[in-house]
Amino acid sequence: MRTIEDYRKVAGDDVIGEIYNKARRLYGKGILHINSTYIGGGVAEILNSLLPLMNDAGLDADWKVLHGNSDFFTVTKKFHNALQGDNINLTNMKKEIYLQTNENFSVYTHINHDCVIVHDPQPLPLIKFYKKRQPWIWRCHVDLSNPNREMYDFIKSYILKYDVVIISNKRYKMDDLPVKQKIVFPAIDPLSPKNIELSKKDIARYLDKYGVKTDKPLLVQISRFDMWKDPEGVLEAFMLVKNEVDCRLVLCGGMAMDDPESQIIYNRILLKAGKLIKKGDVILITLENNILVNALQRSAAVVIQKSIREGFALTVSEALWKGAPVVASNVGGIPAQIIDGVNGFLVEPSDTAEFARKILQVLKHADLAKAMGEKGKETVRTKFLTTRCLMDYLDILNEVLF
Amino acid sequence: MRTIEDYRKVAGDDVIGEIYNKARRLYGKGILHINSTYIGGGVAEILNSLLPLMNDAGLDADWKVLHGNSDFFTVTKKFHNALQGDNINLTNMKKEIYLQTNENFSVYTHINHDCVIVHDPQPLPLIKFYKKRQPWIWRCHVDLSNPNREMYDFIKSYILKYDVVIISNKRYKMDDLPVKQKIVFPAIDPLSPKNIELSKKDIARYLDKYGVKTDKPLLVQISRFDMWKDPEGVLEAFMLVKNEVDCRLVLCGGMAMDDPESQIIYNRILLKAGKLIKKGDVILITLENNILVNALQRSAAVVIQKSIREGFALTVSEALWKGAPVVASNVGGIPAQIIDGVNGFLVEPSDTAEFARKILQVLKHADLAKAMGEKGKETVRTKFLTTRCLMDYLDILNEVLF
Repeated sequence: MRTIEDYRKVAGDDVIGEIYNKARRLYGKGILHINSTYIGGGVAEILNSLLPLMNDAGLDADWKVLHGNSDFFTVTKKFHNALQGDNINLTNMKKEIYLQTNENFSVYTHINHDCVIVHDPQPLPLIKFYKKRQPWIWRCHVDLSNPNREMYDFIKSYILKYDVVIISNKRYKMDDLPVKQKIVFPAIDPLSPKNIELSKKDIARYLDKYGVKTDKPLLVQISRFDMWKDPEGVLEAFMLVKNEVDCRLVLCGGMAMDDPESQIIYNRILLKAGKLIKKGDVILITLENNILVNALQRSAAVVIQKSIREGFALTVSEALWKGAPVVASNVGGIPAQIIDGVNGFLVEPSDTAEFARKILQVLKHADLAKAMGEKGKETVRTKFLTTRCLMDYLDILNEVLF
Repeated sequence: MRTIEDYRKVAGDDVIGEIYNKARRLYGKGILHINSTYIGGGVAEILNSLLPLMNDAGLDADWKVLHGNSDFFTVTKKFHNALQGDNINLTNMKKEIYLQTNENFSVYTHINHDCVIVHDPQPLPLIKFYKKRQPWIWRCHVDLSNPNREMYDFIKSYILKYDVVIISNKRYKMDDLPVKQKIVFPAIDPLSPKNIELSKKDIARYLDKYGVKTDKPLLVQISRFDMWKDPEGVLEAFMLVKNEVDCRLVLCGGMAMDDPESQIIYNRILLKAGKLIKKGDVILITLENNILVNALQRSAAVVIQKSIREGFALTVSEALWKGAPVVASNVGGIPAQIIDGVNGFLVEPSDTAEFARKILQVLKHADLAKAMGEKGKETVRTKFLTTRCLMDYLDILNEVLF
């Protein structure tokens, strides 16, 4: 079980001291986090690291997961996409499934905490089903910069009831929302299996186990097979790169259960890259394994993140933390992490040729790659570690509870 | 939100009255259910129906979901398989991941309830991380009739701490376990979207939407693409049947995320049934949609359940409830639901030819099919509805709390 103390070496004593200071007024305060599974595995990862530390700091932090059936997740996936700008046919049936699941959850979830923190749109309307006895905070991880207006208006009636809204990026600020909005960047846990230092032997063992050879430079994208992550575009960029520099591509990420699109995209890549897959130059891994991801990011010549939309893109922070040169889309939270040309490259997601050019630039200039990687690691150390995220939460709790 | 009252029509006034009676001593008692997601979606379905009713009866029932990362689920899936008899390499690493996730959960889960009910092996060792202040019940949904002994011995040290163990079948009774063991059958919710009465129009609309034509008799298996459910064996039986009676096969079930086997099995079926799929005589649906499942079960000429192992097989109860003739494996909880030749047929799972013969017998004898279906529905009404399950829990709580 990790404690705050374990982070001294990586975050520094000043940060650790500040955490203890900020926690002093909050001893024994009951804080309830509520999220739902499925979309946004990243949120669960953050909570998994944050909650033990919040308790170690002296708070009584609880975590409950909203359970929904497949209908609920089908509907809330559409909501999620609409909040990121997609069209939606917002029927009463969809609204009912959304509200009904939340009402059900409220029946078997007795809340007697000092503060409730609700993560993402799935459990957002919960607040409607409780007598409010404490501050409620909505923590939104979604890109809200250009939502479908009908969708936004529907969820706005619930957002209005909250005391504070936390967003991941100043560009997601909702101008017409008369609720206090705070910006908190997500964060990675430097001590989790996905990010912890690995020995060369362990790296080699994991890559070997999953059939990843390292005799050529590796291009890596870690992302679900999902249209928002544009794995097909990555394959195209890779093919352009490979005309000039021989290399391998690894696409590693889960298949989205219940998501027929995911299967279609995967099949299309299988078809398009058939020969390269047989040759071992394109490697598709649909298994989610944290240590494998860690090993891939540490072995990559370039980490790619060619997303079309992103909430924040913690995969970018993960790669930067490992000193990998990153070429990523200029969307969502990525420009908050990468300064173009300094600690990585930012490219417009539609410009596949430019992706290939930047990747080649990294592959051809080892010194540039190394310098960018080092700066990337420092960026994450100061801004995107779980200890910083904990401090932000403590600040907000100090503000809303007194 | 469903209440106990809503079940009067389907369960009868005597049952409703008995529920209220059994609940009287339990008013305001805090009951905490803990399960984990992933394997056993059936458990979540049961809790989803049960928890609102338990609260409606006057108890304060809470539900918490143990969250784990993909490593945890990989390990606990292996545990699950080993408890059902598979071999396992029970390393310290696996034990650590298992215990660590549970310890983490205990840190951010504050328990002050009168009774804790833990579902299945994933959260079983939680009990180790609390000072015990109330009775703990372990509710096991797994087939424990022939577990891997090393695996069983490892989890036994946690089982021993519990006050009561609930199993699904008398055949799962652990003879060497000095803990009170109770048998509670799982149950289906007759009012959930998966089981509620559907109009002919709705059925037609759903089948049409997913490309299922009804011009030939439909053989249906509802199950994940998973080796334990033997979808390949179902395909083989179907081919034998089709030599004599023209019909269609629908295999409908989710792909197991994180489960590479699942993808392999699916691909193998795609290959084997390629021509039949093109012709529309074999239909694979990897989407999980409750109303579609409902419509398929109501339209099936025969529902097949050719599992190799089963905890209980609620899909059988679901099909029986809809009056469908069922041909199913003589494993797990299936013989508790089906009396061979009376309300369905029981076949040894390895005997594919016998499966085909029984399916043909049903297809060729409409009167037999109808009579079996009617008896099947009555079996479920008396033994496998959520109201009966609620009563069993109330009985056990009355016993452990006083």
